[in-house]
Amino acid sequence: MTASFSLLNRIASPADLRGLDRAHLRQLAAELREFILQSVSRTGGHLSSNLGTVELTIALHAVFNTPHDRLVWDVGHQTYAHKILTGRREGMRGLRQKGGISGFPRREESSFDTFGTAHSSTSISAALGMALAAQRKGESRRVVAIIGDGALTGGMAFEALNNAGVHPEADLLIVLNDNDMSISPPVGALNRHLTGLLSGGLFTAARSTAKQVLSAAPPLLGLARRLEEYAKGLVAPSPLFEELGVKYFGPIDGHDLDALIPTLHNLRDMHGPILLHVVTKKGQGYKLAEADPVAYHGPGRFDPAVGLAPGKPGKAPTFTQVFGQWLCDMAQADARLVGITPAMREGSGLVEFAERFPQRYFDVGIAEQHAVTFAAGLACEGLKPVVAIYSTFLQRGYDQVIHDVAIQNLPVMFAVDRAGVVGADGATHTGAFDIPFLRCVPNLSVLTPADENECRHMLTTAYRHDAPAAVRYPRGSGAGVAVQASLVVLPWGQAQPRRASGAQPGQRIAILAFGPVLYAALQAAETFDASVINMRFVKPLDTAALLAAARSHDALVTVEEGVVMGGAGSACLEALQQAGVQIPVLNLGLPDAWIEHGDPAQITTDLGLDAAGIAASVRKRFGTMLSPAGRQRAANE
Amino acid sequence: MTASFSLLNRIASPADLRGLDRAHLRQLAAELREFILQSVSRTGGHLSSNLGTVELTIALHAVFNTPHDRLVWDVGHQTYAHKILTGRREGMRGLRQKGGISGFPRREESSFDTFGTAHSSTSISAALGMALAAQRKGESRRVVAIIGDGALTGGMAFEALNNAGVHPEADLLIVLNDNDMSISPPVGALNRHLTGLLSGGLFTAARSTAKQVLSAAPPLLGLARRLEEYAKGLVAPSPLFEELGVKYFGPIDGHDLDALIPTLHNLRDMHGPILLHVVTKKGQGYKLAEADPVAYHGPGRFDPAVGLAPGKPGKAPTFTQVFGQWLCDMAQADARLVGITPAMREGSGLVEFAERFPQRYFDVGIAEQHAVTFAAGLACEGLKPVVAIYSTFLQRGYDQVIHDVAIQNLPVMFAVDRAGVVGADGATHTGAFDIPFLRCVPNLSVLTPADENECRHMLTTAYRHDAPAAVRYPRGSGAGVAVQASLVVLPWGQAQPRRASGAQPGQRIAILAFGPVLYAALQAAETFDASVINMRFVKPLDTAALLAAARSHDALVTVEEGVVMGGAGSACLEALQQAGVQIPVLNLGLPDAWIEHGDPAQITTDLGLDAAGIAASVRKRFGTMLSPAGRQRAANE
Repeated sequence: MTASFSLLNRIASPADLRGLDRAHLRQLAAELREFILQSVSRTGGHLSSNLGTVELTIALHAVFNTPHDRLVWDVGHQTYAHKILTGRREGMRGLRQKGGISGFPRREESSFDTFGTAHSSTSISAALGMALAAQRKGESRRVVAIIGDGALTGGMAFEALNNAGVHPEADLLIVLNDNDMSISPPVGALNRHLTGLLSGGLFTAARSTAKQVLSAAPPLLGLARRLEEYAKGLVAPSPLFEELGVKYFGPIDGHDLDALIPTLHNLRDMHGPILLHVVTKKGQGYKLAEADPVAYHGPGRFDPAVGLAPGKPGKAPTFTQVFGQWLCDMAQADARLVGITPAMREGSGLVEFAERFPQRYFDVGIAEQHAVTFAAGLACEGLKPVVAIYSTFLQRGYDQVIHDVAIQNLPVMFAVDRAGVVGADGATHTGAFDIPFLRCVPNLSVLTPADENECRHMLTTAYRHDAPAAVRYPRGSGAGVAVQASLVVLPWGQAQPRRASGAQPGQRIAILAFGPVLYAALQAAETFDASVINMRFVKPLDTAALLAAARSHDALVTVEEGVVMGGAGSACLEALQQAGVQIPVLNLGLPDAWIEHGDPAQITTDLGLDAAGIAASVRKRFGTMLSPAGRQRAANE
Repeated sequence: MTASFSLLNRIASPADLRGLDRAHLRQLAAELREFILQSVSRTGGHLSSNLGTVELTIALHAVFNTPHDRLVWDVGHQTYAHKILTGRREGMRGLRQKGGISGFPRREESSFDTFGTAHSSTSISAALGMALAAQRKGESRRVVAIIGDGALTGGMAFEALNNAGVHPEADLLIVLNDNDMSISPPVGALNRHLTGLLSGGLFTAARSTAKQVLSAAPPLLGLARRLEEYAKGLVAPSPLFEELGVKYFGPIDGHDLDALIPTLHNLRDMHGPILLHVVTKKGQGYKLAEADPVAYHGPGRFDPAVGLAPGKPGKAPTFTQVFGQWLCDMAQADARLVGITPAMREGSGLVEFAERFPQRYFDVGIAEQHAVTFAAGLACEGLKPVVAIYSTFLQRGYDQVIHDVAIQNLPVMFAVDRAGVVGADGATHTGAFDIPFLRCVPNLSVLTPADENECRHMLTTAYRHDAPAAVRYPRGSGAGVAVQASLVVLPWGQAQPRRASGAQPGQRIAILAFGPVLYAALQAAETFDASVINMRFVKPLDTAALLAAARSHDALVTVEEGVVMGGAGSACLEALQQAGVQIPVLNLGLPDAWIEHGDPAQITTDLGLDAAGIAASVRKRFGTMLSPAGRQRAANE
């Protein structure tokens, strides 16, 4: 990784590339693309999107005076080129690993990362804030938001555009990175609109026009000519943006530095909110990724010469796969079932469902608020919607869960994926808060299956409950329990005793586990002969089982893969006090801190949520209570 | 209220008006308008918006086969005419009162109320769900969403439009009720776009064109002519909607039944998503409301002949007013302060700030998601944003609080109004959940001032904290404590002892109060000589004060105006257990149920959160612990 990066290795910061001529910038682009491919193939990470933004990133840093000028990258998984050019080339080796650099922009990582992103559609809001702050403070500063066509469908992007349109004093450039692709192929009318702008040979015409008009001419002349071309209809106008008060330019080829750099140069000196429509191709320059950008969206390690290895058969299914299979089976059994995803078909395991039940499958775009209320509307008419959504994306539809689903007690079911530790995606994607923010909502039940088989049963149980319910399950695989084919309804609101303590009175501990952490709890329980209860339901909580455990034990331990503050353990404390029961309780779960990126197993260990960690916490808190024999056993662990 | 409503009194359901000729419908409109004015002047409620939708409501029920066809009213505070025509004329006497009908549509109230609303911008999502459900089930059913121009700026309305545009099979009519006015005058580029459609005499032309084209002709012919007019440019096209795949018709006069009824008739039989742009005037027919629709948005009781009485001077200021004054004073003291509201200038007390500091005031429209992230962007550049927002509307920006503010630890302050019981607006507006959903977020502090003066101090304290913080305060007035002019910073994270128990060991109770309920707690404490601590901070919780109270008392009581589940009391339980302290604790607050509309004081009493209620709960739980003397005192209360 040295000889072939002769130019790239000399770029310590964007200042170093500003003096390069166009030919060298093209060479830099080629080296950068190769570097990204090699790097990601070794670490895993986002690939397709990063191959698609190489030239755009070079052009932005060449034209704008970063970091004085602000670049705000929407979602931010397409910022590897940006990271490499801003002093983090070496850091790419530790990408998304513990202690290494993040896969997203992070303000604390670099002054070039002006705004931390990861969730979609935030960039225009943040950039508008920055642009207006600069204006109010009298600072001369350009702010650029770079947003994909998928992210632009998120409602908050529209809110921000609508707001930008009434601030002509905001020097804001929005670069619409149109790759006709978010993670899944995008849906929605806006996308059709954008595609329309590219149809009928217009794109080619526009591209050459943009070059002619914008490359050599001084800004004002260029603008005048540009407006003239507009009038002639040679360049596609976009009434949609113009009517919102945002000047529209483009489309231009996002892989052509000869189009990008002069255009950005001229737009840089214009005032007010401007949108530049840039067309890129995901996976650009790596044939395998161009052919299947979805597969190469976020690959693990692979050999660039060979491509992705086929999935290993026989591996334990992930919770996501268990859900996907269940959804198809339940759809087969109940014609009322409909499935909804906010643009996460692959991530949420809906590929097969979408193929088999196209009339009952709704990808609503990156639109979590709409997804939830749309589901409520479907439920009003007697259908049974299942909303497949990540824990942290459900935060986007929180008011709709309360206001449209729960108040009306509509039978909408939420399949909450990525609930708990996620690993490489870090704090922004860690499903830490869903238990506190959901369990306080009346009418809404919250279920926490402990393994794959129970996940299937609890999905069935929640579905048949015919009232608002959320089933939360984590990323990845669980204990590897075989999944039964039948659709089993579990007893509503009932916990499941899994291990009975044989310890002496005064030394009896019961661990109450919520979710897959049950298996670590079972292992830890061996250490001091503790009882273990698989609680299954956060809400309705099995108060009878809880109180019985309190009566027959000397201390309780609750454990969950979510924040302790307001979590399931907290629910146990409330119920105990309500019953007037006093007993020592240790609440284990996620701390009041952000969970950084890294290997999921390592993170779980660091958080003390594996068997050893649970045992250590129990010993620390209740060690004096345990018998000498128990303490001896514990010491031998 | 009888003689003048001769026609209205004969309308028991919409079926009764479908046989009426146009002249009688006009008479009905006149009676209905007068009835609403008289009724609202007696009960209080929403006025301007309801006077504006009289003819539209009559036309919709005349043309559509309700309730088989579905009407979904966005926000829903404009549905009084709808309620009166659908069997709830008598019910209007009890409007928004305990046990009476709601001020919003409610599914459980009437089969004509197909979707419960109150928060903005949900109607298109719900209606699209209903329309697609009907299509999938093979049912012939029209679905109509009625949405204001203000509500249309909410991002989820755009998400829904964008999604509707790819479902040509959805028979969905969106009626855009354009009154150039939400609660506050609307802002944003979309509004300018709509206004543009009405400018230059186009509206008048369009109006007569619409009449000619749409009134008499059979649907298909009408459509053909309509399209022809389009081509001629006589009728304003709206590229914005058309490009989203939604057919646009209008604008037409929303107070002219001769325009409305034939137009709706023809559109009823068209397929696919359609938008009809209707122009109405808030307060129509009542001169005082027409002249000042903001003042008459939600008046209390008044004499229609005289109009609103001027505000009574000398009355205790509301928390909202205390905030508004503080914002101006702090803005004066700190040039970095900027204020942000999602379209709630009046409700959030920002009128004076907006006038005095126009360059530092940002009304971003009904756009809570954008409001929060926009604030984050401003904070990145060194400004200090204060986001004024209702508790339940903050639910709309929850992900942005976590992802854009808290993870980045940006100094954005949230002034969370309407936190707790709200009264007439009921469940949808009750600020019940903010403590659980905010306190679990790392970096974010949560403050609960007990009275007006402390509110001012805690706003100052949170502002000066320079990290994410939320100050929650309720609707209306508090204890009436005089507000100091100075800007005082209170000790961070410290509770304030307010009353020391003189009870004997074994009978000592301490009440830990969060927020204005402190004053009820102080009163209740007299009953059994309890200690009282004004906790002030939910997060960081004053653990030292909590543990000291636990050591020196025999039982603790927590009280807050928010849900018990995951609330501040729950935070106390967590902290006690973490410290290994066992003590009986009674958690008082809102139950796991929806708080219905009614008089705020009555609701508080019903919830047991007034002094008598708190005392009763303590007696019930700890009565046996209290001394005979104490019990005697309690009995004498």
